[in-house]
Amino acid sequence: MLILGIDPGIAIVGYGLVRYENNRFTPVDYGAIETKSTTPTVDRLIQVHEGLYELVEKYHPDVAAIEELFFQHNQTTIINVAQARGALLMALARHRIPIFEYTPMQVKQAVTGYGRAEKAQIQTMMRMLLGLPAVPKPDDVADALAIAICHAHSHKNIQSFRKGI
Amino acid sequence: MLILGIDPGIAIVGYGLVRYENNRFTPVDYGAIETKSTTPTVDRLIQVHEGLYELVEKYHPDVAAIEELFFQHNQTTIINVAQARGALLMALARHRIPIFEYTPMQVKQAVTGYGRAEKAQIQTMMRMLLGLPAVPKPDDVADALAIAICHAHSHKNIQSFRKGI
Repeated sequence: MLILGIDPGIAIVGYGLVRYENNRFTPVDYGAIETKSTTPTVDRLIQVHEGLYELVEKYHPDVAAIEELFFQHNQTTIINVAQARGALLMALARHRIPIFEYTPMQVKQAVTGYGRAEKAQIQTMMRMLLGLPAVPKPDDVADALAIAICHAHSHKNIQSFRKGI
Repeated sequence: MLILGIDPGIAIVGYGLVRYENNRFTPVDYGAIETKSTTPTVDRLIQVHEGLYELVEKYHPDVAAIEELFFQHNQTTIINVAQARGALLMALARHRIPIFEYTPMQVKQAVTGYGRAEKAQIQTMMRMLLGLPAVPKPDDVADALAIAICHAHSHKNIQSFRKGI
C-alpha cells in the first residue's frame, strides 16, 4: 500500500509518500510544496492545489492521510491554512483518492507512543524508521511522513478489526 | 458581462448570476448549494466544489466575485467555511475564471451606499434593483447577488480609471 501523508499549509505543504508492505516502511518520495507570502492568496491556493494534483498524478497513492486543523491564535493564518486545506482536499478528490484524517495527537501517539511528543522526537523517529540519511527539512516534511505512518498503523487496526481479531 | 457572485459557506453557498450591460442589471440565475451537517466535512467540501463547478460549466460567467472571510467567534465554523472557500476557489480556478474578492463592508457600501447597512436593507435593494418577485431566500442568495453587483460597480470604476476618466 502506498500512502501519501500531507501536512497542510499555505506557505509550506509537507508531503511524504511511504510504501507499507509486510510490516515494513519504505520512503518513496518526500518534500514540500512552497508558496511565497508576496503571491496573492488565491494564486497560492492554486499553487498548492496544482502541486498536490501533479504529485498524485505521478505516484498514484492508494490513500491519502491529512492532518486535521485546530485553533491557532493568529486568525488570518488559520483562515488561510484552512482555505489551503480545502484546496488540497479537492486535488485529492479530483483523483478519487480515499482521504483519512488524523489529529496531531493521534499522529504523535502513533509514531512515538506519546500524544504530546516534541517535534524533535517525531523527526528522530522518522529518520530511524525510514532509514533516512538525515532529518528531512523543513519540519513539515517529517510531519507529513509521520501522518502517513500513523495511517498505516490505524489501517492495520481497521483491517484486524474487520477480520474479527 | 456576466458576473457570478458567491457568498461562501459550508452549509449554504449563495450564488447569483447577474448580467451587467448598458448600466443595467439582469438576474440570470440565483440560488444556493446546500449541504447537510450530518454529511462528513470532506464530502460537504466536494459537494460545494462540484456544485459550483457545474454552475460555471453551465453559464460560463466572465468573472467571479467572492466575499472575503473574517474572524468569527466559533472556531470550528470559521475553519470549515474557510476550507469550503478554498474548495470553491478551486472550482473557479479549474475553469480559469478571473476571481475578484470583496469585504462585506465593500459589498454593503456598493449596494446601499452605507458600509454598515443591515441585512434587510441589502435584501430590499436586491429585490428592487433586479426586479425580483420577492426577496430571495435564504439570506445567502441576496448576499451573493449583492457581491455580483458590487463587482459591477468596482469594475466600472476600474474601466473608467483605465480610460483616464
